[in-house]
Amino acid sequence: MPLPPTPLPAFRKTIGQVLRTGLNSSFEATAPPAAARAVRLDCRGGFDAPTAGLAPGAVQANLVVVPRAAAFDFARFCLLNPRPCPLLAVSDDGFALGGDLRTDLPRYLVWRDGAVAEERSDVADLWTDDMVGFLLGCSFSWEGRLEAAGLTPRHVEQQRNVPMYRTAVPNARAGPFGGSLVVSMRPYAERDVAAVAAATAPRRSRPRACRSR
Amino acid sequence: MPLPPTPLPAFRKTIGQVLRTGLNSSFEATAPPAAARAVRLDCRGGFDAPTAGLAPGAVQANLVVVPRAAAFDFARFCLLNPRPCPLLAVSDDGFALGGDLRTDLPRYLVWRDGAVAEERSDVADLWTDDMVGFLLGCSFSWEGRLEAAGLTPRHVEQQRNVPMYRTAVPNARAGPFGGSLVVSMRPYAERDVAAVAAATAPRRSRPRACRSR
Repeated sequence: MPLPPTPLPAFRKTIGQVLRTGLNSSFEATAPPAAARAVRLDCRGGFDAPTAGLAPGAVQANLVVVPRAAAFDFARFCLLNPRPCPLLAVSDDGFALGGDLRTDLPRYLVWRDGAVAEERSDVADLWTDDMVGFLLGCSFSWEGRLEAAGLTPRHVEQQRNVPMYRTAVPNARAGPFGGSLVVSMRPYAERDVAAVAAATAPRRSRPRACRSR
Repeated sequence: MPLPPTPLPAFRKTIGQVLRTGLNSSFEATAPPAAARAVRLDCRGGFDAPTAGLAPGAVQANLVVVPRAAAFDFARFCLLNPRPCPLLAVSDDGFALGGDLRTDLPRYLVWRDGAVAEERSDVADLWTDDMVGFLLGCSFSWEGRLEAAGLTPRHVEQQRNVPMYRTAVPNARAGPFGGSLVVSMRPYAERDVAAVAAATAPRRSRPRACRSR
């Protein structure tokens, strides 16, 4: 009987910048990286609208940047709240997965003392050496699947941002981070709900780190 | 057509102390908590041998404690190396999942300046308010499955610690944490390898957070 293949090549593949956390398997790019790169360069060049519908098949992410002193608590917050905050990557230096976190997003909200202080199109001058960027998976990542299934979300057709609602469900607290769960909403006719659920169900493929040849 | 069940009860269930990271689904207790509690109390009372074979069906964990200033880098290290360091829980205060991290392990190695400085049976007097404990999944968790399949590992029969080997495979670095992969080894006859692989394969059940009723 042949021995099972060595796990070492699979171990080696896990050694990279991409974190493997709870629901990461729901976020897998099917588009080549060039589409996402073009959107990042557009943002750097001044594009500042919501990104819904852009670069279908790419993984879209939300960005949270905190000073290093708060980074451990924020990492714990993400791990304790893996559905709203699926942690895709952590960057120590402003660069993650080929982008420049300081300029390559359409807009940035700057929070000071618990309130939004500014809204800007880049944060290059605010970035300091002790800033840590967290990339969190975003539900826009699945909208390409909905379009492919003939179920384009209404906000994509209207080129607007997705409707969002604050719920009364508390998040698990970690240090100063807490708050309550925010959900996005896509309206569909009742007859389409099963097809929407099928198109957006987490892909239960085995994590890449477990595959062997 | 009935609407799908609301995800909110499932969200509420995610709000707890247990982190959901890459390979956590491989670590699910099938024994009642009392068995693990008895082992913890034995350790507190002076038991200081390896825990292989104890409390079968319980999840066994390794403990790493670092000062808070190093906690973010160590969390990143675990997330970047999810197979050797599957993060089960993080504790800020010395207590995690019903145990006292300062006394409830058989033995502790105290590292200072990159070298083992002491070996002790508790660290109560070394624990300071800024200590953070990380519980990492341990392969002992699966030995009960091997015993149930009639494949008791040799070190369990011999009541010794599992043989461990340093490999030349580097871990992904995060801040001061790096080093190379260490693996454990259980000798089996070639005819038993397929059964061992089946008994120890990750259980691909859906994470609890995704279940709905």
